[in-house]
Amino acid sequence: MNIEILDTTLRDGAQGEGISFSVQDKLAIVRALDELGIPWIEAGNPGSNPKDAEFFSQAARLKPERARLCAFGATRRPNIKCADDPQLRSLLEAGTEGISIFGKSWDLHVKEVLRVSEEENLAMIAETIEYLKAEGRIVLFDAEHFFDGWRANPGYALSTLQTALRAGADRIVLCDTNGASFPGEISAGVAAAIAALGVTEKAPLLGIHAHNDTGLAIAASIAAVEAGCTHIQGTLAGFGERCGNTCLAALIPSLELKLGCVCLPEGKLERISELTRLVAEVSNVPLPASMPYVGSSAFSHKGGMHSDGVLKLKRSFEHIDPALVGNDRHLLMSEIGGRSAIAERIRKIDPDVTRDHPAVKAVVEKLKTMEAAGWAFEGADASFELLVLRELGRHKPFFTILAYRVMSEHPTGQSLACSHAWVKILADGQDEIAAAEGNGPVHALDSALRRALRRFYPSLEEVRLTDYKVRVIDGGSATAAKVRVLIESSDGPHTWTTVGVSDDIIDASRAALVDSIEYKLINHL
Amino acid sequence: MNIEILDTTLRDGAQGEGISFSVQDKLAIVRALDELGIPWIEAGNPGSNPKDAEFFSQAARLKPERARLCAFGATRRPNIKCADDPQLRSLLEAGTEGISIFGKSWDLHVKEVLRVSEEENLAMIAETIEYLKAEGRIVLFDAEHFFDGWRANPGYALSTLQTALRAGADRIVLCDTNGASFPGEISAGVAAAIAALGVTEKAPLLGIHAHNDTGLAIAASIAAVEAGCTHIQGTLAGFGERCGNTCLAALIPSLELKLGCVCLPEGKLERISELTRLVAEVSNVPLPASMPYVGSSAFSHKGGMHSDGVLKLKRSFEHIDPALVGNDRHLLMSEIGGRSAIAERIRKIDPDVTRDHPAVKAVVEKLKTMEAAGWAFEGADASFELLVLRELGRHKPFFTILAYRVMSEHPTGQSLACSHAWVKILADGQDEIAAAEGNGPVHALDSALRRALRRFYPSLEEVRLTDYKVRVIDGGSATAAKVRVLIESSDGPHTWTTVGVSDDIIDASRAALVDSIEYKLINHL
Repeated sequence: MNIEILDTTLRDGAQGEGISFSVQDKLAIVRALDELGIPWIEAGNPGSNPKDAEFFSQAARLKPERARLCAFGATRRPNIKCADDPQLRSLLEAGTEGISIFGKSWDLHVKEVLRVSEEENLAMIAETIEYLKAEGRIVLFDAEHFFDGWRANPGYALSTLQTALRAGADRIVLCDTNGASFPGEISAGVAAAIAALGVTEKAPLLGIHAHNDTGLAIAASIAAVEAGCTHIQGTLAGFGERCGNTCLAALIPSLELKLGCVCLPEGKLERISELTRLVAEVSNVPLPASMPYVGSSAFSHKGGMHSDGVLKLKRSFEHIDPALVGNDRHLLMSEIGGRSAIAERIRKIDPDVTRDHPAVKAVVEKLKTMEAAGWAFEGADASFELLVLRELGRHKPFFTILAYRVMSEHPTGQSLACSHAWVKILADGQDEIAAAEGNGPVHALDSALRRALRRFYPSLEEVRLTDYKVRVIDGGSATAAKVRVLIESSDGPHTWTTVGVSDDIIDASRAALVDSIEYKLINHL
Repeated sequence: MNIEILDTTLRDGAQGEGISFSVQDKLAIVRALDELGIPWIEAGNPGSNPKDAEFFSQAARLKPERARLCAFGATRRPNIKCADDPQLRSLLEAGTEGISIFGKSWDLHVKEVLRVSEEENLAMIAETIEYLKAEGRIVLFDAEHFFDGWRANPGYALSTLQTALRAGADRIVLCDTNGASFPGEISAGVAAAIAALGVTEKAPLLGIHAHNDTGLAIAASIAAVEAGCTHIQGTLAGFGERCGNTCLAALIPSLELKLGCVCLPEGKLERISELTRLVAEVSNVPLPASMPYVGSSAFSHKGGMHSDGVLKLKRSFEHIDPALVGNDRHLLMSEIGGRSAIAERIRKIDPDVTRDHPAVKAVVEKLKTMEAAGWAFEGADASFELLVLRELGRHKPFFTILAYRVMSEHPTGQSLACSHAWVKILADGQDEIAAAEGNGPVHALDSALRRALRRFYPSLEEVRLTDYKVRVIDGGSATAAKVRVLIESSDGPHTWTTVGVSDDIIDASRAALVDSIEYKLINHL
């Protein structure tokens, strides 16, 4: 069965707490969704948000390969003509192929929120759709609060759908706006809608728009498909108002791999992990590591027996091959990870190390001590590799920091940036001292360190720090708390992550910076 | 219907990536779960983890009010007697009232992972349960991979359950270990188990243990209850191997408020938000803001029309009253939040400000500019209040920082901490200068600032910083990135949060510290 997907990251997703898109962010997300082969992108509300209007004027030049854009707005205002409604004009001016219109299906909202008669609400739905259709647009009708409305007053709720059908809507989307309907209620509501509309395989397609307020948005969307919906709305990473929308990255793989539906063009499913992470990064929201299918932990095995089992037989603890969704298996390094996993990981560094090699025991012990002190190597493979090489006695430091000083001051009283640093190192038997200024103390220290090392190790010129994360790991003691710093570095072809822990953020950063440089030099990258 | 809940945060939750519990953490979590009225706490695997063994020796003195503890382990090793198995001995030594034993129900695992005959696996299940029952323990049998096993070889999978029943298991728990079964498969598997066991309302109770690998753990658990299970396993905040376990904080409110089940003692449901956040904090894992029912965004309204609707009629956009689960409604301050929400928030500060007051427009404009520069006031009410007071022309700063200098050095060469700071302030027309050292540069600056202000504002002595968070808001530029700092302060009865943004972490911290102090002084707290 073919399922048509609409992504609303840029509209309903933007209503999620903590999300604020720039126009550039929105364009980047359109490119990512188009790359994945999502056919519909609901991209904003030009009538309520000036930034969205600016976006649509730029988006016209984007020319997505496959995706069609859709602007979002409400039915016309009560008691006026459509042509006199500035909101509808701004929807048309957005210039998109599709226009989503939400209208009220719950009589309670008609009375208490819109404060119009039931007849006027039906007229608002009919006239708005007819007006937009006459302008040649594809119209998607979102029946807001359909399931609540159908429970409260089934006749009226269904009449709003019938009105939209008669007015020529191309999609009729049943919305569980408050996100509280159980899958069984969704199935029953979809069946009632199909009976009232006589929907067939042809247009209008019947759609589902679920929210996750009871943690059931994915189950609700699957129930809707099983009951006959062929259009699904959600957001790739699950962002959205309150508890979020249906998470498409967690739903699409189940539809394709387990239910035999076709949602994306051939070959695109294996890009879903990468593109979901990209959308989350652009949105500046950390993707939950535990997200089904695409999260960084989705195929991570930590329990000793799980790691053991997976090493014997992949499918013993994996429901699908992670490669199908472009994700990776991880055997986590940790005190409960078990020796097998740690030995397996060490063997990648040195193939001669068996499970009973003394280094395995030494690494397990070292991990326990360091984890107790707040270190975590799960996301810092490069630091883990350095730890192993040290335990194998094969680590020769390329340089030593003899001293450093970092200063932040305001005002500076000199023509200096607010943060500046100097560092003195020993490399190859020789001293070197260098100074630098920067945006903040860590940037200044990083710059000074690279300058001091430049003449010894010119290949460091290629290295750029590509991400910097700070985690307070002992929040209770506030500014005196211990912090964990993760630094991601790249020289173009390779990317690696290192970690540092200290109760001083400068010192934690220093540890991660030193590991980053040592890793580059050890691997002759 | 009564549903018995087992929380396995301390066992399966500890297998989640990024989680590492100290013994003190584990004791704090037991107290929180007991406080919530959870009847069973699966607390660790004493046979595989020395820290768990230490925990059990301390837990014996805890005396939970209601909760019963449960140690977790495997059936005996192949081809030995139970009495000779050190793992079973360590389970008994843990001294818990209950013992959970997992055994294999999937013939594939018996052959390929355990590598024993099907008969020996049944003997391992039977003898282990009989051995532990003879020691007077309540035995919970976890049928690992039951649903996969039942699909592959139903006769054998069901025979493992029947073996456990005959051996005297008190609970028989059907585990969807790989987390990939759909709710319909769960219903069918539970029905098959009930038919094979003849389970009635009496013991053994039939249980469900689901994982979230397809985002369906909550739906699966509800399906199991509807099919006849009366024991549910999960973790309060959803932590667990890979994509996590069934999130009890998202499930229990649905069971109690929507399905009429009884899971917690009377009056405890309204503590679930607070205690779930506590468990997450102790686990040092940020609770997703969008978590159903208990997340900080679960009742947050950001879309302008949603905020408007909720102000007219709560249930228009809320499926339950947030107070039922101890959560709060938030109308988010943001450029898309709409004027109604901002006016409502400003009215809490000054009841005379109407929607059309010029200050509302000024605040909306200011918010847009500051949000574009990386500020976020959603979690920083105190800074938002200061912003409003400034726009209303009612802010009189209590002090000004004339200059500061923060230094981090290694080695220090003097008997100084690695970080030290001085600050010069102007208050009440007088200068004051003070210095301090600290763990890290922010701690040093904070200490110096308080010292300088002490003689002007003695009430600051009561203020403590209770949390400190750093968020890199522009990861792409790595150590030169912009950071957002959130500081939580408390004087005992009151707690407030302030925010600072800068490309220099010291300067961002300075801004948040200044707001924290101004807020305390303005409110004469």
